[in-house]
Amino acid sequence: MDEPTQRNPVRAGVIVTGTEVLTATIRDENGPWISQQLTSLGIELAEILVVADHRNDLRNALEHMRSVGIDLIITTGGLGPTADDLTAEVVAEFTGRELRLDREMEAKIEQILSRFAASTTVNLTAEAINAANRKQALIPRGATALDPVGTAPGLVVPGPDGIVVLVLPGPPRELRPMWATALGLPPVKEVLGRATPLHFYRLRMFGTPESELAMELREIEADGNSLDELEVTTCLRKGEVEIDVRYRDGAEGAADALRAELQSRFAKTLYSVDGTTVDQVVAGLLQGHRLGLAESCSAGLLAARIADVPGASDYFAGGAVTYSDESKTGLLGVDPDLIERHGAVSDEVAEAMAIGALEQFAADVAVSITGIAGPGGGTGEKPVGLVCFHARNIAGETKSLSPVIPGGRRDVRERSALVGMHLLRRLLGQG
Amino acid sequence: MDEPTQRNPVRAGVIVTGTEVLTATIRDENGPWISQQLTSLGIELAEILVVADHRNDLRNALEHMRSVGIDLIITTGGLGPTADDLTAEVVAEFTGRELRLDREMEAKIEQILSRFAASTTVNLTAEAINAANRKQALIPRGATALDPVGTAPGLVVPGPDGIVVLVLPGPPRELRPMWATALGLPPVKEVLGRATPLHFYRLRMFGTPESELAMELREIEADGNSLDELEVTTCLRKGEVEIDVRYRDGAEGAADALRAELQSRFAKTLYSVDGTTVDQVVAGLLQGHRLGLAESCSAGLLAARIADVPGASDYFAGGAVTYSDESKTGLLGVDPDLIERHGAVSDEVAEAMAIGALEQFAADVAVSITGIAGPGGGTGEKPVGLVCFHARNIAGETKSLSPVIPGGRRDVRERSALVGMHLLRRLLGQG
Repeated sequence: MDEPTQRNPVRAGVIVTGTEVLTATIRDENGPWISQQLTSLGIELAEILVVADHRNDLRNALEHMRSVGIDLIITTGGLGPTADDLTAEVVAEFTGRELRLDREMEAKIEQILSRFAASTTVNLTAEAINAANRKQALIPRGATALDPVGTAPGLVVPGPDGIVVLVLPGPPRELRPMWATALGLPPVKEVLGRATPLHFYRLRMFGTPESELAMELREIEADGNSLDELEVTTCLRKGEVEIDVRYRDGAEGAADALRAELQSRFAKTLYSVDGTTVDQVVAGLLQGHRLGLAESCSAGLLAARIADVPGASDYFAGGAVTYSDESKTGLLGVDPDLIERHGAVSDEVAEAMAIGALEQFAADVAVSITGIAGPGGGTGEKPVGLVCFHARNIAGETKSLSPVIPGGRRDVRERSALVGMHLLRRLLGQG
Repeated sequence: MDEPTQRNPVRAGVIVTGTEVLTATIRDENGPWISQQLTSLGIELAEILVVADHRNDLRNALEHMRSVGIDLIITTGGLGPTADDLTAEVVAEFTGRELRLDREMEAKIEQILSRFAASTTVNLTAEAINAANRKQALIPRGATALDPVGTAPGLVVPGPDGIVVLVLPGPPRELRPMWATALGLPPVKEVLGRATPLHFYRLRMFGTPESELAMELREIEADGNSLDELEVTTCLRKGEVEIDVRYRDGAEGAADALRAELQSRFAKTLYSVDGTTVDQVVAGLLQGHRLGLAESCSAGLLAARIADVPGASDYFAGGAVTYSDESKTGLLGVDPDLIERHGAVSDEVAEAMAIGALEQFAADVAVSITGIAGPGGGTGEKPVGLVCFHARNIAGETKSLSPVIPGGRRDVRERSALVGMHLLRRLLGQG
């Protein structure tokens, strides 16, 4: 395999402008996200180029993308109101288009900034607002402006050699909605239309190691299921295994067969066949229930995940973060003698915490978590990473376990919330 | 501020070869790590370019780095035994150096592979070992090989125009020790020697918009403080503004003067002058105290941040996640009539929750958060994003506010935890 036998018909490149990314102050979240979006559209992301907020660097980056035959250049960042936000200006130069003030856009931005000024106690002077406003409303002639999600508009700019430059803001929560809008615009649609669509599904597993999955995939193939037409990627991600399957028209049969094989071989651990997350699965299962939580080492991380789903107030009564022994007794009625006899991190205390949460929150389902997150507090018998879980419903059904979770303090705490979520899923009848 | 007035004397570029990074299957850990190493050596990382494992893409990447004036090119990845591991070969071409088999290196790799074969259940045939071995022992003439940490040697290759190419393996645990070795080798030392060390400090602010900071920076300059010798980067990060200042020997005076100006102009909002985070500041202030929390919309996010700091159990008693009205009454003793009269999201209920948390956790400091995270639940009078905060100590001192936080559900919840943290900071005497 020297060179790939065929290049995809459409190649995309991402230019990330951001000194903060280069200095490792922040991580680029946009490159990976755009990559996934492009993949689902059947487009190869050929390059990601991170450059500083300097005019020359950005201009060189655009020229480089052109020289290597990129069809769709996506820039992220550099659209703010300050002087080192240069993207619109440099892209205008690169595409040979003059910048002009878009009055309509100016009015939109003014409205956004006024709203913002009204909602904050900080005084924004009219002068500051106007300067920022005028700069951000400069649009290259012939480009299409994308309405701001924050305060900066995005741009779709037709460039030389049939290249399209899509100019997007840096903050992911502004970039993502704007991406969706951009896909519908004629110049972008035209480029995308040259690619053949790629179909995709994602499976999620919890409790199967990646190595076992790899072995099973080889067996599936040995049993006569060809995977040649499928692109299968497995990825260990935050304690779960994700299996991504991509395929083009005509390979539906092979794709469906693989999914069915995996479902039957991993009936216990494969919990999602459509990309749904465990948080979404649990949210669905909790409808009509009333949930109470009792957390020690995870200290609110499970509660925060539960409440992250819109509408959680329909079933989430509340949680007790009982970090001290006194609070386990005070809030959850855990017998101090039980803590004395078995220790705060024990199956017995985990059970008492879950029972306490059922009562305290008048809940019909409860989960408790108590463990040693470290770095201190471990003993020979109870090492750092030992976490006791107990899930219980009002009918007295229970699921419990007490694994030793590897990793540092944050790993132990985050994994605890994940395990608690899966225990809840199993108690609620899935798996 | 069009272009920085002076370029750094040494510019470095990182080329990441890895289809897995482009497809967002894995995250690049090397770019940020190398960036930090370079910064401490006073060298500017000018670009990070991620390309696929294709010969042409890698060759174009090297040419691009040369064309933009990079002095030190660092490649990561593509040094394995398989056919798509092309880095050594392409770098040899780029630097005009012939590949030759290094017998000594071949022997070293053979020894490593034999050890590896003995320690695994996988059968490596002698043939496979030899092929891999020979390929990885090919060294460009005149280059210095770096002993393998895994199985692949690294390379220091003098290139055209005084460029030095440092070829490193992809896995971070192989790359990092090899980096240390490379720094001591003459061609790398020579490049690094041209740089003067770069000093750095970071300030953190909360409550000042970036636009106001930009204006104030212009004023500071207009008032006669030259910023020409300083590289000042401002970055909006998770609701706070970070100001990074980098400077070389001789610019200490300007750097100190800027810090003093910012401290006096933003006395209320600039809370960290040494890069300390608010979580660390609050952890320090909480020593000797006993903290109780009462969270509704943030649902454990503040508790989780407090508990994220090792040793938090010294001062963190616990928190009540009172998502339902009943739990506000049951856990925190909030009068149901008060909720009825003012609503669960009100200054009155926030105050009652904080008082309840002080009592319930026998705490001497407490913070409460109750708000409307959305997307539902907003009204004309109380829109989505309205969050009421109340911080109170046992002496009856209080800090409270009730802003409307912009953004989606997750933004509102995360920002709530941040505001709660800052309110706690202020109550504990800082600011």
